[in-house]
Amino acid sequence: MNNLSVELTKTPKAKPADESKLGFGQIFSDHMLLVKYSKGKGWHDAKITPYQPIELWPAASVLHYSQSIFEGMKAYRAVDGTLRMFRPEENFKRLANSCRRMCIPEMDQQFQMESLVELLKVDQDWIPKSEGTSLYIRPFIIACKNFLGVHPADDYLYMVILSPSGAYYAEGLNPVKIYVEPGYVRAVRGGTGEVKTGANYAQSLKAQEEAEEQGYTQVLWLDGVERKYIEEVGAMNVFFVIDDEIVTPQLTGSILPGITRKSAVELLKHWGYKVSERRLSIDELEEAAKTGRLKEAFGTGTAAVVSPIGQLKYGDDVFTVNDGKIGEISQKLYDNLTGIQYGKVEDPFGWSYIIK
Amino acid sequence: MNNLSVELTKTPKAKPADESKLGFGQIFSDHMLLVKYSKGKGWHDAKITPYQPIELWPAASVLHYSQSIFEGMKAYRAVDGTLRMFRPEENFKRLANSCRRMCIPEMDQQFQMESLVELLKVDQDWIPKSEGTSLYIRPFIIACKNFLGVHPADDYLYMVILSPSGAYYAEGLNPVKIYVEPGYVRAVRGGTGEVKTGANYAQSLKAQEEAEEQGYTQVLWLDGVERKYIEEVGAMNVFFVIDDEIVTPQLTGSILPGITRKSAVELLKHWGYKVSERRLSIDELEEAAKTGRLKEAFGTGTAAVVSPIGQLKYGDDVFTVNDGKIGEISQKLYDNLTGIQYGKVEDPFGWSYIIK
Repeated sequence: MNNLSVELTKTPKAKPADESKLGFGQIFSDHMLLVKYSKGKGWHDAKITPYQPIELWPAASVLHYSQSIFEGMKAYRAVDGTLRMFRPEENFKRLANSCRRMCIPEMDQQFQMESLVELLKVDQDWIPKSEGTSLYIRPFIIACKNFLGVHPADDYLYMVILSPSGAYYAEGLNPVKIYVEPGYVRAVRGGTGEVKTGANYAQSLKAQEEAEEQGYTQVLWLDGVERKYIEEVGAMNVFFVIDDEIVTPQLTGSILPGITRKSAVELLKHWGYKVSERRLSIDELEEAAKTGRLKEAFGTGTAAVVSPIGQLKYGDDVFTVNDGKIGEISQKLYDNLTGIQYGKVEDPFGWSYIIK
Repeated sequence: MNNLSVELTKTPKAKPADESKLGFGQIFSDHMLLVKYSKGKGWHDAKITPYQPIELWPAASVLHYSQSIFEGMKAYRAVDGTLRMFRPEENFKRLANSCRRMCIPEMDQQFQMESLVELLKVDQDWIPKSEGTSLYIRPFIIACKNFLGVHPADDYLYMVILSPSGAYYAEGLNPVKIYVEPGYVRAVRGGTGEVKTGANYAQSLKAQEEAEEQGYTQVLWLDGVERKYIEEVGAMNVFFVIDDEIVTPQLTGSILPGITRKSAVELLKHWGYKVSERRLSIDELEEAAKTGRLKEAFGTGTAAVVSPIGQLKYGDDVFTVNDGKIGEISQKLYDNLTGIQYGKVEDPFGWSYIIK
């Protein structure tokens, strides 16, 4: 690319020796991508540099007013030896939505894609080889202006960093225990719940911490208005199989429109399942659980792909889903989504993006 | 202080030549305070250094998940020549509340106060001299861990930076025009509205931008549940004089407990006014405006102290308050709060903290 400078590291790091211990988001590759934005000048000075600390003024808006957005995606080493991504254009489209909601100047999505591919080529040896592993890709934009007023900034930094990753959940694909949060709220209509901005995550920390103290892996969020309708689970979207209907909360404005969620809906419909994107109250869910009609529950997200739910706690009630075992649909969805990602099964929708 | 190292700048900057053009948050003093936190070690390595960029790892949690909190306070040059702050212990108490809500380790408040005083002594020449000016103090804590999981960080940085400031509003004490926001929500009960965390401010940017495009200075926020009850205005608390009652929204969990708000309530009660902290719906306010019972409206906050409101727009209705002029109570409150801050009037509650 003409408008992208590349400075390679002189001190490459050792790749992780044991890929079974990668974990998530703890190790970073040798390089990163940076693009600056200045008011009047637009996005400029794109460069690939060694992964290293960045310098920020102490008054940079991101540190005070959290004007920041991000994306999460992955690069895979497919079984045919190609390097792939999964629907990356959807991530850049969503990042553009996040830009608009958070008053951040948009970037050219074609440029984002091409520069990401360049970065991935530079660090391709960082894409791990073992089954189930991937290179997690984190594009993000932060407001950098050295100014303390509550106002959209004039200066921004777009960055992409890469992290070789194993399974997101230490428990693997074993069903997780979920705590239905009765008090804290992640996001509300009119807020920023439908975009990937730090605020939604900052607001989730306390509830997540309290759930963990009680032995639960994730929180199930209810809507902020009536505290009744199911929104999402931790950092994932959520699906429930009730009788022969697969229900996922409809996108009402406070729920993140997950790309894995969208892909799951499309794939399940393609297979002929009845999928409903609709409002689902916690009472309806509890009733379905009590009467044996709740067959399966699972979360979907880039990090975990599909994460089966084995138990839900709501107030004093604890209900087990599918005897705490992974369900048939959850397993099929996991196998096929990861199958497409790793090039093991047919890709009927052309979701795989092969890095050339 | 034993446990605070001081490195003075070798290249002091020129002080602002024209104090009438200070503005807000654009100029920074020569020094800043930094204290590190590491898990297992606690808060350590407190130092005063030259104001300069800080280094952060690109994966630092504050840049992705907005785990950050801050405070805003001021140092004043009083008429008797002393240097003063206004109820600074209240700010450190609120910062501790913010710590708890945002899963950030608390600091010793005595240490925070003493180290702030040391910093202010080092940079005391940066406290401007002209009437109405002050040195804005911004303590803040950011999560620094080089790790991408959504989880409270293990490493933090506490900093204090200083900014000589004039009036917050370019319009000065002239009444401002306020836009009642019908759609966007700043915070909701169960969220983080009652603590000073970046998330609340990030979520306010878009509405603020749209209000400005329509010629309004600030947004008046309604509650996120019923979109009916008044919460706060922009980055300030809000008061309305309806007949002989001074009403400010009660602290229901989504409103910031402002220190100027608290001081205004105490002072107004001390003077014998009837002050109610209660729920106030936008309909009640509009009815009061239409029937001539809305006498005054004003915002309160550290930056502006008291900011009179001259006009409100709600949907298609525009109503003027006190003919667009500053009201008697607003003026009296402004004069006395700033009077106490600058040592011009009696300080019946001992709110002034004299820096020795």
